Amino acid sequence: MTSNAGDNAALSVALVGFGTVGRAVARILCNGAHRRLQLTHICNRGIARKKADWVPDGVTWTEDIDVVLGSDADIVVELIGGLEPATDWIRRALEAGKSVVTANKQVIAQGGAELAALARRHEVQLGFEAAVAGGIPIIHGLRQGLAGDRLFRVLAILNGTCNYILTRMEAGGVAFDAALREAQDLGYAEADPSADVDGQDAQAKLAILSAVGLRCPIAPESIPLHTITTVDAIDFVYARRLGCTIRQVSRAQRSADGRVCAGVQPMLVPRSSALARVNGSRNIVVVEGERGGETAFSGHGAGGDPTAVAVVSDLEAVAAAPAGGADNLLDGAAVPVAEAFESAHYVRFMVNDRPGIVAALAGVFARHGLNLDSVLQDPGGRKQQLAFVMTLDPCDSGIVNAALRDAAALDFHARPPLWMPVLA
Amino acid sequence: MTSNAGDNAALSVALVGFGTVGRAVARILCNGAHRRLQLTHICNRGIARKKADWVPDGVTWTEDIDVVLGSDADIVVELIGGLEPATDWIRRALEAGKSVVTANKQVIAQGGAELAALARRHEVQLGFEAAVAGGIPIIHGLRQGLAGDRLFRVLAILNGTCNYILTRMEAGGVAFDAALREAQDLGYAEADPSADVDGQDAQAKLAILSAVGLRCPIAPESIPLHTITTVDAIDFVYARRLGCTIRQVSRAQRSADGRVCAGVQPMLVPRSSALARVNGSRNIVVVEGERGGETAFSGHGAGGDPTAVAVVSDLEAVAAAPAGGADNLLDGAAVPVAEAFESAHYVRFMVNDRPGIVAALAGVFARHGLNLDSVLQDPGGRKQQLAFVMTLDPCDSGIVNAALRDAAALDFHARPPLWMPVLA
Repeated sequence: MTSNAGDNAALSVALVGFGTVGRAVARILCNGAHRRLQLTHICNRGIARKKADWVPDGVTWTEDIDVVLGSDADIVVELIGGLEPATDWIRRALEAGKSVVTANKQVIAQGGAELAALARRHEVQLGFEAAVAGGIPIIHGLRQGLAGDRLFRVLAILNGTCNYILTRMEAGGVAFDAALREAQDLGYAEADPSADVDGQDAQAKLAILSAVGLRCPIAPESIPLHTITTVDAIDFVYARRLGCTIRQVSRAQRSADGRVCAGVQPMLVPRSSALARVNGSRNIVVVEGERGGETAFSGHGAGGDPTAVAVVSDLEAVAAAPAGGADNLLDGAAVPVAEAFESAHYVRFMVNDRPGIVAALAGVFARHGLNLDSVLQDPGGRKQQLAFVMTLDPCDSGIVNAALRDAAALDFHARPPLWMPVLA
Repeated sequence: MTSNAGDNAALSVALVGFGTVGRAVARILCNGAHRRLQLTHICNRGIARKKADWVPDGVTWTEDIDVVLGSDADIVVELIGGLEPATDWIRRALEAGKSVVTANKQVIAQGGAELAALARRHEVQLGFEAAVAGGIPIIHGLRQGLAGDRLFRVLAILNGTCNYILTRMEAGGVAFDAALREAQDLGYAEADPSADVDGQDAQAKLAILSAVGLRCPIAPESIPLHTITTVDAIDFVYARRLGCTIRQVSRAQRSADGRVCAGVQPMLVPRSSALARVNGSRNIVVVEGERGGETAFSGHGAGGDPTAVAVVSDLEAVAAAPAGGADNLLDGAAVPVAEAFESAHYVRFMVNDRPGIVAALAGVFARHGLNLDSVLQDPGGRKQQLAFVMTLDPCDSGIVNAALRDAAALDFHARPPLWMPVLA
């Protein structure tokens, strides 16, 4: 047996951040089912208006992090979000010999390696299941469940807001702006949705999956992003004709030369694929291993209760091995991220029509040695803002983007061309 | 840190059983990526013809289990299958202070609680990730990843042979016997396929998932089974008309009164559901929790390499905490399993046609208070072996089966009626 925390000695837990997730964690800890864990502190700004009558009397309410850090709490749960002061507080908690459980993707993506090393030095744990894909136990799955395999690819839907918007556009034929407003009305999207729709949210999560799953730490900001805001209702019409739909896909692949090829962007995915079948705000992570083949994990990627489940699962893991020490999965220098990758491609043009446009664009692709697979243009389209699509045979995305820079210089575009890779 | 097995002290591993999975485990252990694990013994009947030149010289080859049990191996990997002598050998290994990793569903389903208690008493571990759903890390997912939730339902496809046969019948319109022969030719089905097609294989796995996931240990033999051998090609035609396909579904649900409602049987599942989209020999486990909602795990449920990944993942878990002791998830007295449950129902009749059959059957259902939802009979059908379908509104399956016992007594059946629940 490990030296401490038999079934009778409960570990004391301090919650830092008492918003939606924090309250859901407190509810679980107060319901009596987790006897190895005892809630002892709740720390939040403006704590007076946060107090809840269902929290047991013995719990200390405070707005002072130093009260938590100076207490004898065994575990600090960080739920305030953002890089600072969260990173500083986690560092100080670890240095004080406390295990830390966090839902903070930014902190782990940016500073996970340093914090994990600090946890090892102080013989405490660092849990971050809740930082990626909410209630889906993907970190446990990659860390322990697939430890016997060597994974080389991650394909995932990591942002529920984007997935809600895109599945609404798909099902309802609605425009991006209308779908976004719906998502905002339902509380799925922030007033400023840019971190979701432009990809920074998924970027941080993908960096963590690359480190834990592929054993390739990468700097989150080195992952190329493409926004979903340029996806139009017409793209779903053309995608369907190609047997596909559109999803914000996060992908990372370990290449033979030790680099990682990664990106977060809207992609065409076959309607029969696992990614296409993830509807609404759900998430999915599909990993591919050299021995185990393809394994998929799907579920609720956000929300108070699913995220709280991930936090409490981490707390239980600490309770099972409080002195276990963080593992070294986040360690190592960041490896470079390659932008270009091989795939088929979809390019949608929106032009003010006149003779010679298809010829000009086909000529650009030909000069770059790119082979057209199809040209999709409905008959009888309008002359202004006419949308049509060219698809390209599988080739290097770097060449496609070079060709598109040339194409963009032509004078008939009503909007910049929209490029999306097509998932095989 | 735990007391032993720092990164430098490799644990010695004895493989008992050197068939497809055993060889795949040995390959992984010999490839140098798992430095905390060292293969030291291989035990198999007729060991002379088993020897492989890629196994390092230092490994002891033996056909004598006592050589393994008397050695200083830290972990015994049991891969011989079957209840005995596997249970006896595992018990003796644990008593000798060795951790055990097994892929043996029968041993864990029947004797898991006793063996886990023995492991705890001897302060060693008992790993059985490979016993359920091969390469899918479902045991780790339920034990650790979802430890913060309270799960109340498991719906799963746990037998790749059945899933291969049923998806072939679905896609190719082929008869059961032809699909079975195909599966046998491809090595997916045994010469005697009864444990797969009649459900005993899935039954043992479901008993383990009920214990680990629902915290409700159940006796495997108490789970009601219905064979898939009575499913006919025509059932896929009618299922499709109902927006469904057919799968061998393993289900267990914790009810409010502390019982478990469980079964393994062919069911109609909506074509849009996660279960319907699992094709070929793949497996899926969908769990539903009070807080985290629905979480799904899918992947390769069998095969040497995926199963070996599960074994090695368990070995790594032992290496991370060799003295951690088995948890108590298998503990407790078996709870009773209820047969009846609420669902919609599909009943296919195959009759020698004559006037009055539909009236007679409709009368039987009416007498039992059951409401018909639809009657499906194609016009112009043959008179002998005429197949038609009645579907029933959601109701208790016990009443349906009572009605079917009455219906079976009527004299026009060419084959016994086939009952399948319809998944909502």
